[in-house]
Amino acid sequence: MSDDPSLQSALLLDRLCVVLCQTSHPGNIGAAARAMKTMGIMDLRLVAPDVFPSEVATARASGATDVLEGARIFANLPDALADATFVVGTSARHREFVGEVMPLRAAMAHAAQQTATAPNGKVALVFGTEMSGLTNEEVLRCHVLAYIPSNPVYSSLNLGSAVQVACYEWRMLADLPPNYAAPAFQLATQTEIERFYVHMESSMTAMGFFNPEVPKRLFPRLRRLFARVRLEREEVDIFRGFFSEIDRLVGLAKPKKTDL
Amino acid sequence: MSDDPSLQSALLLDRLCVVLCQTSHPGNIGAAARAMKTMGIMDLRLVAPDVFPSEVATARASGATDVLEGARIFANLPDALADATFVVGTSARHREFVGEVMPLRAAMAHAAQQTATAPNGKVALVFGTEMSGLTNEEVLRCHVLAYIPSNPVYSSLNLGSAVQVACYEWRMLADLPPNYAAPAFQLATQTEIERFYVHMESSMTAMGFFNPEVPKRLFPRLRRLFARVRLEREEVDIFRGFFSEIDRLVGLAKPKKTDL
Repeated sequence: MSDDPSLQSALLLDRLCVVLCQTSHPGNIGAAARAMKTMGIMDLRLVAPDVFPSEVATARASGATDVLEGARIFANLPDALADATFVVGTSARHREFVGEVMPLRAAMAHAAQQTATAPNGKVALVFGTEMSGLTNEEVLRCHVLAYIPSNPVYSSLNLGSAVQVACYEWRMLADLPPNYAAPAFQLATQTEIERFYVHMESSMTAMGFFNPEVPKRLFPRLRRLFARVRLEREEVDIFRGFFSEIDRLVGLAKPKKTDL
Repeated sequence: MSDDPSLQSALLLDRLCVVLCQTSHPGNIGAAARAMKTMGIMDLRLVAPDVFPSEVATARASGATDVLEGARIFANLPDALADATFVVGTSARHREFVGEVMPLRAAMAHAAQQTATAPNGKVALVFGTEMSGLTNEEVLRCHVLAYIPSNPVYSSLNLGSAVQVACYEWRMLADLPPNYAAPAFQLATQTEIERFYVHMESSMTAMGFFNPEVPKRLFPRLRRLFARVRLEREEVDIFRGFFSEIDRLVGLAKPKKTDL
């Protein structure tokens, strides 16, 4: 493996393949392809799909037709898993399975860790049919069984949604750079903020809003507010300008030149 | 708030509402309703939907028609947010937004934390139209803007998928009990495992597979294997039985009574 973390992250994406078993509705194959591509995962494998290729699948795939066109079709699950070194099955319900069962997030982290140091590490993520999920025979081919934490009285995610959540969890593990950057702002220092409190107290006293003889809880409350707000330098400047204007109104400061 | 953690978790689910702005395709409203219900989130709000109610929405909602039937329709986003105390907007692209921008997981955790101690804490999660997302005016109503980490060259999640991932992240924060339990197994203790190694070495020596005079790396390799495998008690028993059978074959042990 490379020492370059971003290259390792890209390799992690390439290490996952998604295997859909006996999918009934071609629209779900298209939705799965789209979900995969949004997360940068391109290796789709179809085990005996009912209808494929299909215009419905292509329509639902939206811009992810390359994933659909690259999809490989297999007659059975063992063939689809031939080059896999770790297999995560998915199931919404309790199964006769003697292996480990974990929530999806833990299962994906475990799969990444189990294959991290192996040059031939390839993780397969297996989904059963829309109606009944994986068969017991298919489940036996899995190292771990993952479930998506869900509403116990309505746990049936759409197949495309389940693929979306699982591929999202895999991408989160890759810890890739953000899609876009937040705007950067200068935070105010404690010195600037303390000077602002002094100014605010002086102005509020001069205007008669605050009485230093009977302070009550005004400044503790204001400090609570501004502590939460993580003031930026530009915001302190706005407030300082506002209180300077009050100072002029109450005669604490000279009028602005424009007012002369 | 209650001191009962499970009640607090249920309250967390009830604290989220999903707001869909000017949705074009009723199918996406249905998909969003289904996605919400799988995660136990029931409060759906629609701002000026193009078509609603709709048979297409009902069909896509599958068993989540109660979420659709309970959905409230608003003329504009401010009305839909009237009772919200924290608003998370979603955007796949950089926006003219002076607030904080974070990946979805961080944004949901932040929203939960920001409203955790407020009895009236209500978090709104806002999605824009399928084609162009939130308008700049709508974005201004949000406390933070969240993006779903995604493929930079194909970041367009289906609306239902985006709602699914976001509601999943919210449910993960609630840390509810697992949907089903993994089967429980007794792990083998170090004492049992060391006895197993002694037995295995004795049998392998007697059968001529292992030469204690020229040990090479056989037992370090076997220890590496069994250390990874986290042996269970029943598995140690299976191996002990297997090596006892070898002992009988090579005359190290008496034949089993059934063989007499």
